[in-house]
Amino acid sequence: VSFLVTILGSSSALPTSQRFTSAHLLNAGERFYLIDCGEGTQMQLRRFRLRLGKINHIFISHAHGDHCLGLIGLLSSFNLLGHTEDLHIFAPAQVEEVMRPMIDFFLGQVQFRLIFHAVATKGSNLIFDDDKVSVYSLPMKHRIPTCGFLFREKEKERNIRKEMVSRYQLGIAEIVKIKQGADFIDESGNIISNTELTVPPMHQRSYAYCSDTAYNPKLPEYIEGVDLLYHEATFLHKEIKRAEENYHSTALQAAQIAQNSHAGRLLIGHYSARYKTTDALLAEAQSLFPNTDAVNDGDVFRVEPSREQ
Amino acid sequence: VSFLVTILGSSSALPTSQRFTSAHLLNAGERFYLIDCGEGTQMQLRRFRLRLGKINHIFISHAHGDHCLGLIGLLSSFNLLGHTEDLHIFAPAQVEEVMRPMIDFFLGQVQFRLIFHAVATKGSNLIFDDDKVSVYSLPMKHRIPTCGFLFREKEKERNIRKEMVSRYQLGIAEIVKIKQGADFIDESGNIISNTELTVPPMHQRSYAYCSDTAYNPKLPEYIEGVDLLYHEATFLHKEIKRAEENYHSTALQAAQIAQNSHAGRLLIGHYSARYKTTDALLAEAQSLFPNTDAVNDGDVFRVEPSREQ
Repeated sequence: VSFLVTILGSSSALPTSQRFTSAHLLNAGERFYLIDCGEGTQMQLRRFRLRLGKINHIFISHAHGDHCLGLIGLLSSFNLLGHTEDLHIFAPAQVEEVMRPMIDFFLGQVQFRLIFHAVATKGSNLIFDDDKVSVYSLPMKHRIPTCGFLFREKEKERNIRKEMVSRYQLGIAEIVKIKQGADFIDESGNIISNTELTVPPMHQRSYAYCSDTAYNPKLPEYIEGVDLLYHEATFLHKEIKRAEENYHSTALQAAQIAQNSHAGRLLIGHYSARYKTTDALLAEAQSLFPNTDAVNDGDVFRVEPSREQ
Repeated sequence: VSFLVTILGSSSALPTSQRFTSAHLLNAGERFYLIDCGEGTQMQLRRFRLRLGKINHIFISHAHGDHCLGLIGLLSSFNLLGHTEDLHIFAPAQVEEVMRPMIDFFLGQVQFRLIFHAVATKGSNLIFDDDKVSVYSLPMKHRIPTCGFLFREKEKERNIRKEMVSRYQLGIAEIVKIKQGADFIDESGNIISNTELTVPPMHQRSYAYCSDTAYNPKLPEYIEGVDLLYHEATFLHKEIKRAEENYHSTALQAAQIAQNSHAGRLLIGHYSARYKTTDALLAEAQSLFPNTDAVNDGDVFRVEPSREQ
């Protein structure tokens, strides 16, 4: 089952010839979740051969242009493409306030229901779940109300060992109970323990998206053990003063968050256009948290399936 | 002196993997005029190595998203890049009405003056001129108030033949008069005719941008003899009913406008996404007006300098 993130835009406010502004696409079991929607996101989806029509859930971190200006064009294209399924947008209330008038004007009559869900930007709250993932908001520290998002696969059941089904002639009702953790008592009254009957469940993979934010020492408690952590790294640490003034983070701070949350892997992005390459940003983050990548538009990062120990 | 148009976007409402939505950049004597500004225009400017900072005049045809959604991101980038010169936007009043609230919200404090000029969408009026060009509005027939734009180089003076300056020992005051068309009377009282003293002036090159519009038989009277005519060709003529319903034109109609206005060269664009290639659209237009090109993003079309006959 797939669990992968495609980077659609990796620049901060100012796009460059190589980088569009922020947008990520999470594919969890062939369900697609768009996270942020900078200008040109719909072009990037096409460029990287990702189907617009598969997106029904959009998560917007905040009402800065480099995170949401692509929304109107994307929704307009949904409409032109004959999209009829409900479209859900999860974002701080300000995003709807600012964009709704223009959405209504530019889209005119729409064939689908557009449903905004206001996300609180304090603490971490469950804001959505379906049969693939649960999504939690994450508190960001930025100039305007801003949230991050944590996507976590749904809890998985233990898997039954195939040979046990035939050995004990297990019926459907028994299998259901055993997958949930029950032991089995055979005809002779022997108790067969659940650990003998099953293997541990698949690990619930997780992805956290944290952009834009000043360094937030409380963030790790909400994302403890996350497999894949995207954290903005707008500046090098020598620009810490500028980072603080603008409520952004440095590459070193991103690495600190990754270390403190015991993340599996760190992705940095949202680079200031002042950096012509990401070499120094990456080196800085890796000095503290070696398993770091500096993302580029079009990059794909997978979390492979594994079993719980 | 340069007079060339770069195509930044050539699709109609729905962008494709190959085509962004409408935007053209006219370079007239190294002065840059942006015409329409679909989503991602700033990325296309970067991609084609055109400098944002050189643009001080933007012309928007109408308030449909595929012609103006890139404006907020572009203005935001101007601001981030430290643009301080006045920025003029010429557009039907509705464009400012719709976009101003979002521009104000997303740009926040700006370092430059942003000046909207409301353009009437009936008839053809001089809306702007500087030392390089005069710009006239053109009436389009569309669902909402829409104008096209005609750019014409400023009238040029006749050029004096160099050998005449020394032969008749012409002074500055005399040269100025002769360039404006005066004859010259030498010391002996002989009249030297202006046609002997000068060569005809350089031709005033012109470019007309006509998108979006239903077929408008009155349009040619406003663009008679235009050198380069861009006219939308959303559909093939077999879709004439759909074109009329949506206030768009067919490739054959674009060619008819070019023929009736005695244009030098026709560019077609704004293709419906239903056409995977432009072959049929181009063939249809060329059947009536052979000197036609079907534009692609990144194409550059020059009008070479020439002398009036």
